[in-house]
Amino acid sequence: MKWKKQVSTLSAYKPGMTSAQVKEKYGLNKIIKLASNENPFGSSASVQQELANSLNTFALYPDGAATELRRKVADLHNVSPTQLLFGNGSDEIILIISRALLEPGKNTIMATPTFPQYKHNATLEGAESIEIPLLEDGHHDLNGMLEAINESTSIIWLCSPNNPTGTYIPQKDMEAFLEKVPQDILVVIDQAYYEYITEEETSYNGEWFNKYPNACITRTFSKAYGLASFRVGYVMGSVSIIQQLEPVREPFNNNSLGQIAAAIAVDDQKFIESCRVENSKGIKAYAEFCQKNELGMFDSQGNFVLIDVKQDSDVVFEKLLQKGIIVRSGNALGFPGTLRITVGTEEQNIEVMQALTEILGLG
Amino acid sequence: MKWKKQVSTLSAYKPGMTSAQVKEKYGLNKIIKLASNENPFGSSASVQQELANSLNTFALYPDGAATELRRKVADLHNVSPTQLLFGNGSDEIILIISRALLEPGKNTIMATPTFPQYKHNATLEGAESIEIPLLEDGHHDLNGMLEAINESTSIIWLCSPNNPTGTYIPQKDMEAFLEKVPQDILVVIDQAYYEYITEEETSYNGEWFNKYPNACITRTFSKAYGLASFRVGYVMGSVSIIQQLEPVREPFNNNSLGQIAAAIAVDDQKFIESCRVENSKGIKAYAEFCQKNELGMFDSQGNFVLIDVKQDSDVVFEKLLQKGIIVRSGNALGFPGTLRITVGTEEQNIEVMQALTEILGLG
Repeated sequence: MKWKKQVSTLSAYKPGMTSAQVKEKYGLNKIIKLASNENPFGSSASVQQELANSLNTFALYPDGAATELRRKVADLHNVSPTQLLFGNGSDEIILIISRALLEPGKNTIMATPTFPQYKHNATLEGAESIEIPLLEDGHHDLNGMLEAINESTSIIWLCSPNNPTGTYIPQKDMEAFLEKVPQDILVVIDQAYYEYITEEETSYNGEWFNKYPNACITRTFSKAYGLASFRVGYVMGSVSIIQQLEPVREPFNNNSLGQIAAAIAVDDQKFIESCRVENSKGIKAYAEFCQKNELGMFDSQGNFVLIDVKQDSDVVFEKLLQKGIIVRSGNALGFPGTLRITVGTEEQNIEVMQALTEILGLG
Repeated sequence: MKWKKQVSTLSAYKPGMTSAQVKEKYGLNKIIKLASNENPFGSSASVQQELANSLNTFALYPDGAATELRRKVADLHNVSPTQLLFGNGSDEIILIISRALLEPGKNTIMATPTFPQYKHNATLEGAESIEIPLLEDGHHDLNGMLEAINESTSIIWLCSPNNPTGTYIPQKDMEAFLEKVPQDILVVIDQAYYEYITEEETSYNGEWFNKYPNACITRTFSKAYGLASFRVGYVMGSVSIIQQLEPVREPFNNNSLGQIAAAIAVDDQKFIESCRVENSKGIKAYAEFCQKNELGMFDSQGNFVLIDVKQDSDVVFEKLLQKGIIVRSGNALGFPGTLRITVGTEEQNIEVMQALTEILGLG
């Protein structure tokens, strides 16, 4: 076969062990999975209740325009429905943007470590990835990113809160950055964890995109909304950007139940608020735990913490696994010696900290 | 923005009117939608029953490996699980294959008219589409396609049954064709409507792919299985082809409920058989109707018929719409003067033929 040369260099995504596999391997009854930044509180109860009424039109194609969901999300953010494009998770949004702009001879700037799909897609498109290391405190090196811009740069990715550090870019810093970026470069602000931010933010609304027409923002229903199983993400931006991305979107990329579930979930902002509050308590508990035990931890505005365990984190990961606790070892995330732990319920968090105390031999 | 030049030439998919829109526009109570080749018999009753039990893990990411569905589909076709890759509908399979092989300087051969996503994806990848007109009887011009091959050809698409004609390529013709295609060209056989074929076919199993290692077959759960709302399609091929496509697939492209629904549906082959039988009766009824009224109709092995109404088909389409019957005008499908009508239930078919008799002023 005549595979593209960049394709033959790539390897497939290697998923971690599932809860069922961990159960079987270690003969465990209970598993605490805090490896994928899923919502430990599930999703709005209304989704389950109302979705059951929608289980009768399986044979029909989804609404390719996601009309109802679009209307609800537009209202939520005070943007025009024409400023939105929906994807099969924000993973697909990243694919669509990359496929529209990246090609051999172009480059794209991103932090490192950050969410790996930016680079993966750039490689698939044959474009160069310029990776700017995070600052020591885990924040994006925005000046370094500005300096890296050249005439072949077509996309800059800002992941905020950043995966895997949890650090975020305050809106005023974001805006100062945007003021300095040439207008023909698309700045993609990946806010998959936006709903967890507790710092004060003004809103990213339709007017904001008028002011920053070369910026777009991606969001997802997979994190705070607790709908990862359905795969619904979206991008907001100026009408002209959305229009240009549209032909790259497959006509029926958003499955029907995902559209319905997300539309229901938007209405339950109390659930999101309660998750933000609980998550914030969990982060505080981890921060105190780390301070007490002299472990490093980045300031997180996401629903996860990156903790420096000061040991081979693959070994600690494995020992947690034996106790039925699944997290991510930082070795695979560009932060050797750390663990990325999804903030769970209060009970789960306590259990994880107890396990870490034991495994790391802490006071 | 630095949009790829091929992207800026493309327009977005324009969906037809929804049932709700037709209802509102014409003040109708009942709509018969036969425009998208959906299954008029819905889906296996077991899907609805069993899916309700699966509505409690929304917050978790799907199984990226589609383990259970993979096992069931592998068993169904007698292929190895490693010979399968699942997509968000077979639309995404076409995207994945195109993204893996097509680029500027390469070309891809397809029939015309055929399913438009092959060309759309080729254009997105900057590759040339070589379109070989169908023969007069609607069949693929396989010799013409062979003659069009050159050293830059990387994919050949065979749509069988072909959308929008319904004509299919018998397995022996397919095999004779494959014998003549250079081994470094991927031949993609799109069998979205495979389950409707009533002509004798031997099976495309693991052994078959050993014999034709540069062929792969795409299938979907959106047609006979009646699960279009979920978006599940797949490709079967040699292990080496599947392995090379894997990195192009997004890690969590198949939503959880879609995986579950499709896995349940595979078990109900009686439902598929009954749909095939009913569909075949419907095609026969349309064929008799066309013969009686001297209208042209292609031999169809799909779940739709393409009828030459010998008038401006946009006008006939509009008149059907006013009666609450939604079909597709052939003007948009490369066959001016025709209508593509999904075969419906017996009752729906009778109603459509009555409406056509009236509109076309037939005996």
